[in-house]
Amino acid sequence: MNHSSNEKEPETIEPLRYISKTEVATIETELLRDYRFGQQQLIEIWGHACAIAITKVCEVNTNYTVHRCDLHNSLYLPLPEYEPTIFYPKRSPQSLHQDFTVQCEKMDIPFLSYLPTEVQLLNDAYNLVIDAILGPETDHKEVKEPYAGMLVTLKQVKIPIVSVDVPSGWDVDEPAKDGINPEVLISLTAPKKCATGFSGKHFLAGRFLPYDIQKKYELNLPEFPGTECVIEL
Amino acid sequence: MNHSSNEKEPETIEPLRYISKTEVATIETELLRDYRFGQQQLIEIWGHACAIAITKVCEVNTNYTVHRCDLHNSLYLPLPEYEPTIFYPKRSPQSLHQDFTVQCEKMDIPFLSYLPTEVQLLNDAYNLVIDAILGPETDHKEVKEPYAGMLVTLKQVKIPIVSVDVPSGWDVDEPAKDGINPEVLISLTAPKKCATGFSGKHFLAGRFLPYDIQKKYELNLPEFPGTECVIEL
Repeated sequence: MNHSSNEKEPETIEPLRYISKTEVATIETELLRDYRFGQQQLIEIWGHACAIAITKVCEVNTNYTVHRCDLHNSLYLPLPEYEPTIFYPKRSPQSLHQDFTVQCEKMDIPFLSYLPTEVQLLNDAYNLVIDAILGPETDHKEVKEPYAGMLVTLKQVKIPIVSVDVPSGWDVDEPAKDGINPEVLISLTAPKKCATGFSGKHFLAGRFLPYDIQKKYELNLPEFPGTECVIEL
Repeated sequence: MNHSSNEKEPETIEPLRYISKTEVATIETELLRDYRFGQQQLIEIWGHACAIAITKVCEVNTNYTVHRCDLHNSLYLPLPEYEPTIFYPKRSPQSLHQDFTVQCEKMDIPFLSYLPTEVQLLNDAYNLVIDAILGPETDHKEVKEPYAGMLVTLKQVKIPIVSVDVPSGWDVDEPAKDGINPEVLISLTAPKKCATGFSGKHFLAGRFLPYDIQKKYELNLPEFPGTECVIEL
């Protein structure tokens, strides 16, 4: 890329910007429509980056396989040695999501048919919850079943929660007051306003974002070291 | 994954298998039809792995951006600091390939309108050629223009060539006698028969391959260290 070498402005490091719900939608539209990123491609990039971030917070002393999954309204419950279990209560009718679901099934990743309401069962059986239930497009004031019940459960679990992009049930534009409390947050593309005061471990999966988009929206993303697709903020 | 822990056979390390042209097609069909991998997803996975492998052979002392491109019948000529130039003589009519092309264009990656036949120009202007011109599906005995001319040029360049999957013009099933002579080969999914005696640096981008396919075709892929998507063989 010849951007950096042609850059004429002096190098001042502006702070990373936390974007609004409206900007999330605008940037995604631009990526899909103007840059012609594919949704399948973005899911692959994001899913891979999430898997890498999770290995950074949850190292295991064994050889492991990193799985990328469809991130659509599901919950991942990895066991030690990265043996994930998926709870995916409402199957998407879209072939894009169905394809990723088949990939998981064919790779023998077990799907839970229901989420135990007895929280102790989850605490005992799993080491970590990956929350990819609700995305930034959801109205946090109108969370319907079965997601509302899942959030009640997640508020009570004692095992750490890793939230993908926006913690489920949070408003994109404001930090949550009484929502779920993830220990780890993996922001996709750019961090959202609600993550401004986030005190847990915060990763950003935004390396793929074209430089011109970063500049146009003044995102001030940090430099990703080496070939890393995620960075801890 | 519960495969490794449930494995009952004793751990004997079988040698990596080099697959035939027929097996290449069978495995790809199985990935797409049964496992429902998408072509866009596979291109993203392979392109990313190629970019990572290239950073391993061609380190630069500066911050860089790793680009993934459509690998369809094109040639990449990266400059120092990873400033790639693409020569893509025959545009694909498929929207899948067009989308990746737009991504490259919108990211300001220059496209060459013709490939200089004066080899010295290439030697002077570029540090490395990435050959992704012809894939395993091409009949090596019937290479047409403009690819035949490109191969003549590539046989003469003095800068190193990195070939992706099958060096252009080689037969998948047999090592080439008088074809191009890459210094580096990046095998996708599994190495092909033609790479059996390859003496250059050889990388394998196969981590994504589901365990059951690896087993069914007795590929005996090596263990990929850490979270690496490529391994040097």
